[in-house]
Amino acid sequence: MKLLYPTSVPNLDVQSLQGFSVTLHPYDVKVPIPEEHIDAEILVTWANSTENLKDAAQRLKSLKWIQSLAAGPNDVLSAGFDSSRIVITTGVSLHDYPVAEHTLGLLLNGARHFYEMRDYQLQSKWPAHLGGSFPRSDFTTLRDSRVLIWGFGSIAKTLTPTLTALGAHVKGIARSYGVRNGIEVFAEDKLPELLPETDALVMILPGSESTTNVLNAERLKLLPKHAWVVNVGRGVSVDEDALVDALEKGEIAGAALDVFKEEPLPASSRLWKAPNLIISPHAAGGRPRGCAELIADNLRRFIAGQQLKNVI
Amino acid sequence: MKLLYPTSVPNLDVQSLQGFSVTLHPYDVKVPIPEEHIDAEILVTWANSTENLKDAAQRLKSLKWIQSLAAGPNDVLSAGFDSSRIVITTGVSLHDYPVAEHTLGLLLNGARHFYEMRDYQLQSKWPAHLGGSFPRSDFTTLRDSRVLIWGFGSIAKTLTPTLTALGAHVKGIARSYGVRNGIEVFAEDKLPELLPETDALVMILPGSESTTNVLNAERLKLLPKHAWVVNVGRGVSVDEDALVDALEKGEIAGAALDVFKEEPLPASSRLWKAPNLIISPHAAGGRPRGCAELIADNLRRFIAGQQLKNVI
Repeated sequence: MKLLYPTSVPNLDVQSLQGFSVTLHPYDVKVPIPEEHIDAEILVTWANSTENLKDAAQRLKSLKWIQSLAAGPNDVLSAGFDSSRIVITTGVSLHDYPVAEHTLGLLLNGARHFYEMRDYQLQSKWPAHLGGSFPRSDFTTLRDSRVLIWGFGSIAKTLTPTLTALGAHVKGIARSYGVRNGIEVFAEDKLPELLPETDALVMILPGSESTTNVLNAERLKLLPKHAWVVNVGRGVSVDEDALVDALEKGEIAGAALDVFKEEPLPASSRLWKAPNLIISPHAAGGRPRGCAELIADNLRRFIAGQQLKNVI
Repeated sequence: MKLLYPTSVPNLDVQSLQGFSVTLHPYDVKVPIPEEHIDAEILVTWANSTENLKDAAQRLKSLKWIQSLAAGPNDVLSAGFDSSRIVITTGVSLHDYPVAEHTLGLLLNGARHFYEMRDYQLQSKWPAHLGGSFPRSDFTTLRDSRVLIWGFGSIAKTLTPTLTALGAHVKGIARSYGVRNGIEVFAEDKLPELLPETDALVMILPGSESTTNVLNAERLKLLPKHAWVVNVGRGVSVDEDALVDALEKGEIAGAALDVFKEEPLPASSRLWKAPNLIISPHAAGGRPRGCAELIADNLRRFIAGQQLKNVI
């Protein structure tokens, strides 16, 4: 049995994958897979080019399992692999900590107006009004702030203890009601009640048809004027034009986006110049941790015929 | 007995100061204290003008106690009050949380390069190199980072649990060796050993002659090239020219300063244009919390002839 692993993961601990009845072969994710490896049964992906994946979907006829290291492997899903015979597993747990940390950073960037301080710095100007008691906004600190996390999965569970320790009051939105890790999580039908009581809305939704434009003009209007929106899930979940409109009209106080409908964000996008909008270039994750451990664990399960982790 | 409280504190809960054998009078901190109040025995200060304080030092002959709400009331200390008969207390505990939160934000701003993302955003450019595995720096996350806090007082004690929860390894520097709140704190003679093992140096030193320029060229050279420096204490503790030199030569990776030798920072300062330098306009604190509770507690102690809190 043959496993192909990507050379795009820095410092992948290949030694941790040894000891199984599998041969291990590195491959370049930006070019077609070499002819001698099209018999591979296992493909590990990370930051592959669209062409590489489309080509692999056509040529790797023996493929049985794809281990993506991405949290949401839309690239693999849209490449044309035969899902009737190929199991796809994600690297969702590898990104929990980096994305949670980035989200915390974006929340503080908004609350403390670091982006605006930078604009003044570039003009060698001292923005005294950004210090002091900062009366012009109600979201100036996480302490006693009301944070609503829409898409309450493993990233939210990693982020929440830090937010709580910093004094924030956290609630969640997911498919069904429940108390998860001590946080009350509601279904989407509660949004009309929850959004008006939210100081910071954190979106961590996966990309899918059902999440497309779920943050629309109508829901943005339900947020208080001092509210911030942070999106670290997938770009499709936000109606970007409605968001820019809301920022321009002052219907919300600010937004920090790490994900966009089109990436890289085109120079023509209205988002670049929208007031109080922070643009982060899909940089929340991209630092997977524990890759080899996840691959090895799933490899053992695969060989033993057991249920894999993170099946899509 | 007469207490003067400043109108510069938004929403000061004056009701919490009632019930003592003291009359309470508001005053404007930007103009001389009116003639009818120069018999005050207690003065509460917050964001007073230099002129107001110098004038008060000359005219308030009955003054026995000054309650500053600042963490480090250099303004009061340098105004010429007769310290032989006037007790000065600080508001140090009121700023622990806001300063700790700001410090966390500055650390994440550095690690995640939000300031640099902003520069690209202003040009409608997508900085793809700031995402992904971010190989060009070793301080890209707090996780497993080594944070050294120089000036290990109440702000450090508030900040440290969050840093630890985010996976950082924290050590401290203070006047003497000891384990404080579970963190190993060393004396300054250990700096030559500690600085080379530091990814982020956080300075929270008070302003005084003994702290002037303690972060000098020699000590900056001991830091690794990937290290960041964050200063939220007082500007005097950093040799600003040496810092700019270190940044320009790439001897350290970046710095985030909230305090400066001269504030507002003059337009002519080299700091504005130094590479990888984040300028925050003394905005870490400025949001004192629990002012009335501190004043009331100290007022009770003052009247009872007991030891005051936060005596300088």
